[in-house]
Amino acid sequence: MGKLRFLTAGESHGQALVSIIEGIPSNLEITSDYINHHLARRQVGYGRGGRMKIEKDKVEILSGVRFGKTIGSPITLMIKNKDWENWTDIMSPEGEPTDKREITNPRPGHADLWGGIKYGFQDLRNVLERASARETASRVAVGSVCRKLLEDVGIKIGSYVVSIGGLSLADKIQDIPLEERFERAEQSELRTPIPEEDYRFKEIIDKAKEEGESLGGVFEVFATGVPIGLGSYVQWDRRLDGKIAQAFMGIQAIKGVEIGEGFSVADKLGSQAHDEIFWEEGKGYYHKTNRAGGIEGGMTTGEPIIVRAAMKPIPTLMRKKSLHSVNIRTKQPFDAAKERSDITAVPAAAVVGEAMLSIVLADALLEKFGNDNWEEIKERVEEYRRYTKQF
Amino acid sequence: MGKLRFLTAGESHGQALVSIIEGIPSNLEITSDYINHHLARRQVGYGRGGRMKIEKDKVEILSGVRFGKTIGSPITLMIKNKDWENWTDIMSPEGEPTDKREITNPRPGHADLWGGIKYGFQDLRNVLERASARETASRVAVGSVCRKLLEDVGIKIGSYVVSIGGLSLADKIQDIPLEERFERAEQSELRTPIPEEDYRFKEIIDKAKEEGESLGGVFEVFATGVPIGLGSYVQWDRRLDGKIAQAFMGIQAIKGVEIGEGFSVADKLGSQAHDEIFWEEGKGYYHKTNRAGGIEGGMTTGEPIIVRAAMKPIPTLMRKKSLHSVNIRTKQPFDAAKERSDITAVPAAAVVGEAMLSIVLADALLEKFGNDNWEEIKERVEEYRRYTKQF
Amino acid sequence: MGKLRFLTAGESHGQALVSIIEGIPSNLEITSDYINHHLARRQVGYGRGGRMKIEKDKVEILSGVRFGKTIGSPITLMIKNKDWENWTDIMSPEGEPTDKREITNPRPGHADLWGGIKYGFQDLRNVLERASARETASRVAVGSVCRKLLEDVGIKIGSYVVSIGGLSLADKIQDIPLEERFERAEQSELRTPIPEEDYRFKEIIDKAKEEGESLGGVFEVFATGVPIGLGSYVQWDRRLDGKIAQAFMGIQAIKGVEIGEGFSVADKLGSQAHDEIFWEEGKGYYHKTNRAGGIEGGMTTGEPIIVRAAMKPIPTLMRKKSLHSVNIRTKQPFDAAKERSDITAVPAAAVVGEAMLSIVLADALLEKFGNDNWEEIKERVEEYRRYTKQF
Amino acid sequence: MGKLRFLTAGESHGQALVSIIEGIPSNLEITSDYINHHLARRQVGYGRGGRMKIEKDKVEILSGVRFGKTIGSPITLMIKNKDWENWTDIMSPEGEPTDKREITNPRPGHADLWGGIKYGFQDLRNVLERASARETASRVAVGSVCRKLLEDVGIKIGSYVVSIGGLSLADKIQDIPLEERFERAEQSELRTPIPEEDYRFKEIIDKAKEEGESLGGVFEVFATGVPIGLGSYVQWDRRLDGKIAQAFMGIQAIKGVEIGEGFSVADKLGSQAHDEIFWEEGKGYYHKTNRAGGIEGGMTTGEPIIVRAAMKPIPTLMRKKSLHSVNIRTKQPFDAAKERSDITAVPAAAVVGEAMLSIVLADALLEKFGNDNWEEIKERVEEYRRYTKQF
Repeated sequence: MGKLRFLTAGESHGQALVSIIEGIPSNLEITSDYINHHLARRQVGYGRGGRMKIEKDKVEILSGVRFGKTIGSPITLMIKNKDWENWTDIMSPEGEPTDKREITNPRPGHADLWGGIKYGFQDLRNVLERASARETASRVAVGSVCRKLLEDVGIKIGSYVVSIGGLSLADKIQDIPLEERFERAEQSELRTPIPEEDYRFKEIIDKAKEEGESLGGVFEVFATGVPIGLGSYVQWDRRLDGKIAQAFMGIQAIKGVEIGEGFSVADKLGSQAHDEIFWEEGKGYYHKTNRAGGIEGGMTTGEPIIVRAAMKPIPTLMRKKSLHSVNIRTKQPFDAAKERSDITAVPAAAVVGEAMLSIVLADALLEKFGNDNWEEIKERVEEYRRYTKQF
Repeated sequence: MGKLRFLTAGESHGQALVSIIEGIPSNLEITSDYINHHLARRQVGYGRGGRMKIEKDKVEILSGVRFGKTIGSPITLMIKNKDWENWTDIMSPEGEPTDKREITNPRPGHADLWGGIKYGFQDLRNVLERASARETASRVAVGSVCRKLLEDVGIKIGSYVVSIGGLSLADKIQDIPLEERFERAEQSELRTPIPEEDYRFKEIIDKAKEEGESLGGVFEVFATGVPIGLGSYVQWDRRLDGKIAQAFMGIQAIKGVEIGEGFSVADKLGSQAHDEIFWEEGKGYYHKTNRAGGIEGGMTTGEPIIVRAAMKPIPTLMRKKSLHSVNIRTKQPFDAAKERSDITAVPAAAVVGEAMLSIVLADALLEKFGNDNWEEIKERVEEYRRYTKQF
Repeated sequence: MGKLRFLTAGESHGQALVSIIEGIPSNLEITSDYINHHLARRQVGYGRGGRMKIEKDKVEILSGVRFGKTIGSPITLMIKNKDWENWTDIMSPEGEPTDKREITNPRPGHADLWGGIKYGFQDLRNVLERASARETASRVAVGSVCRKLLEDVGIKIGSYVVSIGGLSLADKIQDIPLEERFERAEQSELRTPIPEEDYRFKEIIDKAKEEGESLGGVFEVFATGVPIGLGSYVQWDRRLDGKIAQAFMGIQAIKGVEIGEGFSVADKLGSQAHDEIFWEEGKGYYHKTNRAGGIEGGMTTGEPIIVRAAMKPIPTLMRKKSLHSVNIRTKQPFDAAKERSDITAVPAAAVVGEAMLSIVLADALLEKFGNDNWEEIKERVEEYRRYTKQF
Repeated sequence: MGKLRFLTAGESHGQALVSIIEGIPSNLEITSDYINHHLARRQVGYGRGGRMKIEKDKVEILSGVRFGKTIGSPITLMIKNKDWENWTDIMSPEGEPTDKREITNPRPGHADLWGGIKYGFQDLRNVLERASARETASRVAVGSVCRKLLEDVGIKIGSYVVSIGGLSLADKIQDIPLEERFERAEQSELRTPIPEEDYRFKEIIDKAKEEGESLGGVFEVFATGVPIGLGSYVQWDRRLDGKIAQAFMGIQAIKGVEIGEGFSVADKLGSQAHDEIFWEEGKGYYHKTNRAGGIEGGMTTGEPIIVRAAMKPIPTLMRKKSLHSVNIRTKQPFDAAKERSDITAVPAAAVVGEAMLSIVLADALLEKFGNDNWEEIKERVEEYRRYTKQF
């Protein structure tokens, strides 16, 4: 990250999730409603367990915004845990330790054990409370501020689910324009770009639930309207594709990231792997294809940025299925299965992906155009767009 | 990056590639021979053009090392351009500009055009000289220092090519142990783990050459002997998988990165997607599978780290094939094809991947154990390994 | 900063001051009582205006601590504004702008005007709400966590006021040991090391108040028990004295920083400007003087670190005195004087200085010894102390 | 630092000093002559030992500049050690260790001992070769590039010596305009703003030499033409005064830093400590005084930035004088005095101060205006200057 800094904090069942963002310019219009809208989008999704209903996330803006406009100061976003009163005994910052709900059974596929060893805990709850994907609510909150900024200069972010549990829509969506895929996904409980086929996904989710299984999947996030030349090739850590890859791979449960054609381009011949360059008076340079997914040489090309990510199935399995593991005190095996769990979180992860792309792009934009006064910066962006068309 | 900082510098046909590494502890043994060995490994590869023969890279250590040991001070690594005398007119830092070999034809699939717009150049040579994959020699030099450090505490890095131009060995290598794949790849001109089949790769490379094409491919990089608990889940940008993803996606021409089973795990059922946890007296915790590729919750699990990356075909095509593009001055189309070019750089990219993994892991190791005196740090690593076995 | 990151947020009359600290190891004992104690110390001070009475700062720990111990996760510290209900109309993050209490008169000696120009504000309240020294409460909260960590390994932080309004105790304290100066200052309403003379300070403060004036002064902050070798000479930005200087000069209203003898050493002969080195079995190396203030070559020498800072008088003056300035809309002069104001904030600034030194030293300590598990780190510190004695 | 990154490397008697600067925009005109001019200015100075004559520093630009213009890529600056051939046996990066000129006598006032302990060296040469003030040549080289950039937008940097060995010109220069002080200092062998009085400084230097002593002193560095609003109050580490303080205190041998009136303002009454604000059509806001030294609230005010620094006497003393210290192997005292040494380095330090101020200001400028294309950035600076005048 260059100009923006942000830190998220908070445990899954703690008092609140809190984030501070530093480096957002002054005079950007932003409201809690706008942020809440995106927080709600993260919570939609067929096949999610009970907690989603308890917590309809609402953000409170504690600093950095006055009468709906940023003032250049650090922005604090707090999402209170609505169920906190039921967790005070277990998660209190002060007082005597209680062993109530202490966790000594590390779950396979989770951070539990490695975090316990790294940080020296006998109660693994200390790990899982923070390692939990609940933290992604913070990222969506932070990402929403960045998204609003991008929208102001015509950059739109969207996402949709491509596959769940091996059932893929990849072939069927080729001819649907990106933004339409997004609009459709907004209508789908599963964020798929073909809501009419949602029933097929529900079937496999229901089946997985019945069998005590969980499912992963693949989603795509895109950005349109991005100016040419964000990111840079001059140093390895300034490449925008690298920053995007970190931002996505760093989302809980993500195991693969692609940009543009990704792995499939590795099998192609050179003549079919690249995007030819065209030029038109008044429009400037453009492509007729977008195999590169909007990034070449670590920089944006002006074409839509397209990122694809693979999410592993949720590691918490329900009764009937169980994975072998051992208690950290007794070293005896235990049954890791739970009464209930989400079956899949791919639709939610897609919304988190939108947030992370928003953050990376806002940072790159502010790096190129300055980050003091949004009124000033918007003019610079416009001036630069004129220049790129005339280059 | 946490404790380590490094900057690479230098143009492809400039006087030299220079890197400075800051944060390597004192008392680490390192020689230019060691670094040169890895620089040479990057230059091996069937199907590479003429330049590789001109430049047998040799590093000079200009600072930070005395009598074969680091002294805690920044390390400067310089790789001189042996062909510099033929380029002084074109690349001189001083003197009057010459239009000799000025470049106004932006190549599809390259940084040329976007870099020219971003930085305001009429001569695109200013872009391609730095955006060139030649820069990866610097990364290998820097990575070699990190690799030496890792070796000292029993962490081994290796790589091999999985596929080129769609011809894949993925299925055939499943039963070959990781380190053996690497040993075999070291014997192969194409870094494949089954050198006996190299002839098949050579065939498709020869065919591509004949047709004026280029080829991409997939490679894997791994690390064994990694202690548990490098990286962290506590903040998004401290997750080790995210850092690895940035490091790999930031290699020139890489379009996809996977850790462990990557995209394929997205299609699996939860019960088949995770690694069960076992424990044995004296050995500590371990797995019988390694689907996660050695990282869970953004931390190392003690299992081998496995990273897979997809490289697009080299965008420079040879005569016969051509991609449409327009001259930035005349806006007229031109023929972008060249007389000669590398056909594929996948084997070289695998070695660059080793370097990047070495850098990320050395940084994570020093973050956890301190970075002053390597003698002291090695003891801390050993102490921690004892602790993890007894947890 | 190396291992620690922290962001403070919040406006002076906003809902709350919030800070997030990232990088504090697990298993450090910390309570809100401990932090509140130091927050209260910041609020002591003769000659302070009314607000200090309204706001008896109390911290709430919202994350990162469980049952009195850190868990390695980011720590959120919130100090609510107890007067917030009276400020909602003026400082609300949402809703329609109100021009109530809008500020268009920039005060000399404040950030008002430059912040307004930089960020493009017509209401300078947007600046002063954040630029206010109220923000230092956050620093003290963050610094308290760091201070607790330092105390655990025998590093003690203290401060005392040397002069106010030109009345100096510098000559009189030469023979009082550092820690005693601190103990005495803790008994003084003005943090002076000779409380018996406080009446003289009160006299000049009362006189200043009468005349509508304000006063500045000089304070010293020290740390004892610091291990040898924190900081480094290997790169300009790793020098500990530089980091300390930034941390102090970055406190509101500070205009000068000295380490050890500071400016006065510039006038001395070389033979009287340095600390001779001695050695004793079992004790290791030591000095009989500490002219260097505990830092040489950007590293700690094991002697007490001594930092001195100069604070300018509070720029807000009371009726009777006024400084010329112009309204940003009308460009007409106005009377910048207020009904009431603090006369001096030097004692408070000394406590803020303690916080900043604590933060810089904790960061340097964690950089040298790792920052995962405090139990583990403490052992490393002890081991290193043994080593330094035997060197 | 925000947008700029740089690393310096190299040992005092090593092969070369090498620096890499990352983040300098493209299209900035820069030549080695320009840099060499400032390197030479660092080497001027009455009372300096023999080495200055051996090494007339000359920079080679190895990357990032083409035909006298930056290309946005990292800039490598190399200053070869002209005496390297005489040091190869002692400083070779490779080969067998030799104990020739091994150093086991730590000098008081130097980094020798603390560095040796920190990094675990038995030969303290490993420390002093890097801790040496010779490294400041790198900073001047890097600073020159930044200075050129600042000059292009009308920001001028200068310095002069205020006192040496207690002999001060402070009172006599009050009425000499800043830029004239600089012009005069450029004519003085000792960088004093009253060259006619240089003979008095020479007298005390000669006397010190005779007595085997060394001298410290005070210098001032300034910048004129700085736009309003560089730096920020929104976060502690974005305050420009803090960054300047780090940059100056991090220069070898500096023990105190002041901005504007510095420590003396602490003794003043509020009504005499601040700069009143005036406004004039077409000119905008201005002051008639500059007590603040050009920075308020961590931001530039448009007035000249004035920084004052105190340098301790060079710790290496000549025969006749000696400081007590003990050999690290035998623990026996030794005579630390040398045959010859510089008497004072204050004039050189002033030039290093110019470099550090240039670096900090260039970084702040690029942070506010972007750092891609200097042509574009210059227009933004001009546009902003227009805006500030009309605010």
